[in-house]
Amino acid sequence: MEKVISFRVNDLKLRVKETLQINGVNEEIAECVTNVIIDAEVRGHASHGVGLLPVYLKRVKEGGIKKDITTEWISKFGSIGILDAKGGFGQVAALEAATWCSNMAIENGIAAVGIRNNNHIGMLAAYRKPFQDKGVVGLLLNISGPSVSAPGTIKATLGSNTFCLVTPTSMENEPFVVDLGTGVVAAGKIRNALAHGEQIPKGWLKDKDGKESIHPEDLDKGGSIPLFGQYKGLGVSIIAEVLAGMLGGKTISPYVNKQRKYLNLPMNCSQLFIGISKYAFGLEEMDSFIQGLEDAVLDGYSEPPKDPFFPNQVELNHSLKVKEQGIVLPYQLVKDMGWV
Amino acid sequence: MEKVISFRVNDLKLRVKETLQINGVNEEIAECVTNVIIDAEVRGHASHGVGLLPVYLKRVKEGGIKKDITTEWISKFGSIGILDAKGGFGQVAALEAATWCSNMAIENGIAAVGIRNNNHIGMLAAYRKPFQDKGVVGLLLNISGPSVSAPGTIKATLGSNTFCLVTPTSMENEPFVVDLGTGVVAAGKIRNALAHGEQIPKGWLKDKDGKESIHPEDLDKGGSIPLFGQYKGLGVSIIAEVLAGMLGGKTISPYVNKQRKYLNLPMNCSQLFIGISKYAFGLEEMDSFIQGLEDAVLDGYSEPPKDPFFPNQVELNHSLKVKEQGIVLPYQLVKDMGWV
Repeated sequence: MEKVISFRVNDLKLRVKETLQINGVNEEIAECVTNVIIDAEVRGHASHGVGLLPVYLKRVKEGGIKKDITTEWISKFGSIGILDAKGGFGQVAALEAATWCSNMAIENGIAAVGIRNNNHIGMLAAYRKPFQDKGVVGLLLNISGPSVSAPGTIKATLGSNTFCLVTPTSMENEPFVVDLGTGVVAAGKIRNALAHGEQIPKGWLKDKDGKESIHPEDLDKGGSIPLFGQYKGLGVSIIAEVLAGMLGGKTISPYVNKQRKYLNLPMNCSQLFIGISKYAFGLEEMDSFIQGLEDAVLDGYSEPPKDPFFPNQVELNHSLKVKEQGIVLPYQLVKDMGWV
Repeated sequence: MEKVISFRVNDLKLRVKETLQINGVNEEIAECVTNVIIDAEVRGHASHGVGLLPVYLKRVKEGGIKKDITTEWISKFGSIGILDAKGGFGQVAALEAATWCSNMAIENGIAAVGIRNNNHIGMLAAYRKPFQDKGVVGLLLNISGPSVSAPGTIKATLGSNTFCLVTPTSMENEPFVVDLGTGVVAAGKIRNALAHGEQIPKGWLKDKDGKESIHPEDLDKGGSIPLFGQYKGLGVSIIAEVLAGMLGGKTISPYVNKQRKYLNLPMNCSQLFIGISKYAFGLEEMDSFIQGLEDAVLDGYSEPPKDPFFPNQVELNHSLKVKEQGIVLPYQLVKDMGWV
């Protein structure tokens, strides 16, 4: 049996924040980064949780993350903003951009913010709150460094570019969220398997020669994650390249530095956040449509599915479980962090 | 051998337009609809070509398409527009929306137009020109009536919702385009196989009982097209539901009338077009990034691919071929149209 340790949510939050501060990160930034990491754990996305902390700390030490840098607005033209993250913690710029974007969308109906020269921002859904609070639909796009192989290729040449759609709801203070990467699986899930000493399912990974692999360690030995959905998936990924890469950051994913490979360099990844006010389109609430969508899909089953269909319910269930049982981490990770 | 007939592009254009006019469509609308149909044929997407004409004509006759209706702007607030298509030909509203959207994007940096109560608009990429001409990135989204089965389901409950991204280029007057539906295949491709008397590949279609089918006629007998990319594909489809459906049209795809099933009713499908000025993000040209993307992907092959990688090149090649050899149509279709 693999050794694991469970933490209460608030205890873990304190540990993460304290660890960042011990490593020289100021309190405000540490709080922001911690919230994003803990949110991912609570929603059941360990791939974007505490497992990221060791690499963040290495990058702070080596200079890839400039721990005290302040973001700078390059321009604000109407409801278009360009924010320079200046190689700081990605979470700080992302939260600032999400807040501005949702504010401007309410004012003008629609807004977009490009974030340049950024680092890893974690789970995109972590920035849902400003959109939910204002009643703004948010489309959040990100490009990352090459980890994904396009259909027919054997090498990682594209990022596992990500899409997140935040649809504001009237209930429970949680929006309806879709959050997906364009690799068949998140790299973090492969790394999580590695941390837990597990093999991975077929189809998740190719090794450096382009052969199928079930060994998670092949990822960082020149391996690649296949793009999801074949050529249509490539089309989806290109949408992120154009919006988040070219517009958002004057770059594309092949030029982004992988955070584990170049510890001393900012990733220079980029994002584009688009906000559209529901009120500008005459909508007071969107819940009934979301319900209609779920009802329709459920109607397509021959037998009702055992598991909840939409990710929101899965995430809610996980967050309730976490409140009872705490967040479970691999022992080795906890040891590496000096928490035991 | 299947019987086919080849037409020169301009000859076919005249035939299509004339046929629409004979059926009572005024010249301006006939011209617009014809351009969209011919454009699809020239780019090699017969699924969105002349094969649509018979159903359009039936719908005009039965009242599903109101042939002479004039669109009406419900509101224009800043750079948000809502256009009521009023059940007319979808192409007319779509072209009007694309033109307004790209104009407002240049003025304000970003713009969006929702189109409500619309009918089939054909190939989304057909509306690329206003975006290309202005230097605006266009994200065009559409929801259609239920033809797609969600993962794990056996029934068509969602539209083959479509995404089109238009990236303006400096060269050749043609933008870089990504255009994809969320079914594993376009319904039009299955209908095209039917028109040519061919079977279809495995994986394209489920019959009314949810069983895999290679018989194209099963599509209109309660069959369904599987969603592409499993649950990630579902996430992509939901993005279209929220943006094109809820915001664009105060609806969702399960409520859209299928054009062949309800000949006497407007589809009431909807679209959302988003335009973002490249200049607002400080870009004079985007070609170098597109080239960088293609170079990177090509670098991932063990051997250079025989076929062109990006769809633009495939479409360009097809349009050159069409200039030489004409547009090839099934004999039966030509006969049904009374052109032989």
